Amino acid sequence: MIEATAFRWDGQRLLLLDQRRLPFVEQWVECTSAEEVAEAIRLMITRGAPLIGIVAAFGMVLGVKRAMEQGQSVDLALEKAAEELIAARPTAVNLSWAVRRMQRIAREIKGASPGEIYLRVEQEAVAIYMEDLRANRLIGQYGAALLPQGAKVLTHCNTGALAVSDLGTALGVIKTGYTIGKVQCVWIDETRPFLQGSRLSAWELQKAGIPFKILVDGAAAWLMQAGEVDVVVVGADRIAANGDTANKIGTYMLAICAARFGIPFYVAAPTSTIDLSIPDGTAIPIEYRPDDEVLCWHDVRVAPNGARAWNPSFDVTPAELITAIITERGIARPPYRESIAALFEFAKGR
Amino acid sequence: MIEATAFRWDGQRLLLLDQRRLPFVEQWVECTSAEEVAEAIRLMITRGAPLIGIVAAFGMVLGVKRAMEQGQSVDLALEKAAEELIAARPTAVNLSWAVRRMQRIAREIKGASPGEIYLRVEQEAVAIYMEDLRANRLIGQYGAALLPQGAKVLTHCNTGALAVSDLGTALGVIKTGYTIGKVQCVWIDETRPFLQGSRLSAWELQKAGIPFKILVDGAAAWLMQAGEVDVVVVGADRIAANGDTANKIGTYMLAICAARFGIPFYVAAPTSTIDLSIPDGTAIPIEYRPDDEVLCWHDVRVAPNGARAWNPSFDVTPAELITAIITERGIARPPYRESIAALFEFAKGR
Repeated sequence: MIEATAFRWDGQRLLLLDQRRLPFVEQWVECTSAEEVAEAIRLMITRGAPLIGIVAAFGMVLGVKRAMEQGQSVDLALEKAAEELIAARPTAVNLSWAVRRMQRIAREIKGASPGEIYLRVEQEAVAIYMEDLRANRLIGQYGAALLPQGAKVLTHCNTGALAVSDLGTALGVIKTGYTIGKVQCVWIDETRPFLQGSRLSAWELQKAGIPFKILVDGAAAWLMQAGEVDVVVVGADRIAANGDTANKIGTYMLAICAARFGIPFYVAAPTSTIDLSIPDGTAIPIEYRPDDEVLCWHDVRVAPNGARAWNPSFDVTPAELITAIITERGIARPPYRESIAALFEFAKGR
Repeated sequence: MIEATAFRWDGQRLLLLDQRRLPFVEQWVECTSAEEVAEAIRLMITRGAPLIGIVAAFGMVLGVKRAMEQGQSVDLALEKAAEELIAARPTAVNLSWAVRRMQRIAREIKGASPGEIYLRVEQEAVAIYMEDLRANRLIGQYGAALLPQGAKVLTHCNTGALAVSDLGTALGVIKTGYTIGKVQCVWIDETRPFLQGSRLSAWELQKAGIPFKILVDGAAAWLMQAGEVDVVVVGADRIAANGDTANKIGTYMLAICAARFGIPFYVAAPTSTIDLSIPDGTAIPIEYRPDDEVLCWHDVRVAPNGARAWNPSFDVTPAELITAIITERGIARPPYRESIAALFEFAKGR
């Protein structure tokens, strides 16, 4: 039984808080199959790089469960579930990372009874969740240490409890910094087109009692120019071996502006977001989402009929613009190829 | 009798196309007093720096007309109308420029009969409109000459026929460039929070049959990185004597990104937008508009109740980031203090 901010698992089914309807409607969507979980990820009912990894792991558990109930091959079910889940969204590596980890576990106990397999994969999904919980606490602490006293912090998208197991990555740094009295105020980019900032981060910060204001994404440079930003902290969907970081569209512009104004630009993410198989950002697959996300507002069209949009969901910020990458294993600084490799060496050595 | 895209004048009343309701509803708002015109400007029923100058001039005409009809002092009416119109929006200098010009004319014929004053001020308002028409043609030609063959052009906000007398400033450059076969495609920033891009520029370009795509404001850097932008052209609300340029919020970020990618960044505006009394951008008054523009969508709230926004309507792009300023008197290039002064010297010499 898990009761997180963004999902619930009761051993039978996965409940996902419908993030499309926040902040005004708190509605839970029930998933009882891997297909339903994949669809929920695709539709952004649930979102956030670490979170879609976690829910995909439970999607794999549901795949095994369904196969057992229907007397079908568990191997085949896992294979099919993995394929569907990974295809749901391409950019965040946490998704495929979690699914492949579940597949590895299933392979390790190949030949066991379906019941044993089920228990083991459920255990592994819970472990992925628990590890993310712990990672977020550590990221929060490492990151908060980097904040100046009285910090005015700008962030983008939602990287809070709605994007992870709990607490958050970038928003976890901010929350932890606020708890220890270092954060004065938070600036939230509204984050078009999905408005993760004005809908989701605002919802979380309001619940946490942390003072914030929302700005349109295009206003960040003017805010920086006004001396109102001491530090920028964002999350990540995939970090290449050289530190290039895919994150929500708009991040790259923030990083370019932060560099111009000499403002530290931090990326906060668990190491499950780092993809060592990708040498640099050019190899990160970028998801392009439907035009209507930009051209409509809920069901109301905004742009003229027939108009088209260009709707990349992510961009890639080059490592040279990133001051540091905050992970649960510590802080990586340039040159990133070396410092990121060291994070993984350190882990192996333990 | 004037029938422009965004307003109509029939000698009795001013009709304004309600730009809040475009692109789906083409509704005209009738103004028969200066107060109504000021209110229409304040509410952004009508908008665009040169256009609010033109409609304010007709607002002054309506002030005289109303005073005559009610047997009141024309002088007092003009004074009151000027005050209200100028107070409607602070940043675009075209507004006060047009109003002061109308006041100057009225002073010149002080002592004339109300009927004569009315004819003269109406004539002057029409002259302001006609001059802007001519300025836009010239800006279009000068600007189009700067575009490379097959140009992919990125623009921000709406600077077309809905923002001026007709044609447009930055969008006029793009339309003219398209007409002579130099523009391959247009990228339109949606331009939060008022969505002048996805609602208004899209409406205009679609009517003109010019191919375009809409992107969220935060996507511009990624578009530039992809090599899809050859040139950025924007309008202006006020240009200081040193070339610093106030324009729709988001412009500054575009300019910073264009500089990073080595992409030419052009400002297109009539000289009525240049304010020689202001030495640099720090002295340009920036309008902050209501939170709800950011936090609501039409009448539907997006952010949690109680959330606040920071909503500057403009930012100031420093001259050092501007490749050239395209005016009806020619193209100013750095150093701008000299080149801008020369535009005005040239005019005096004629």
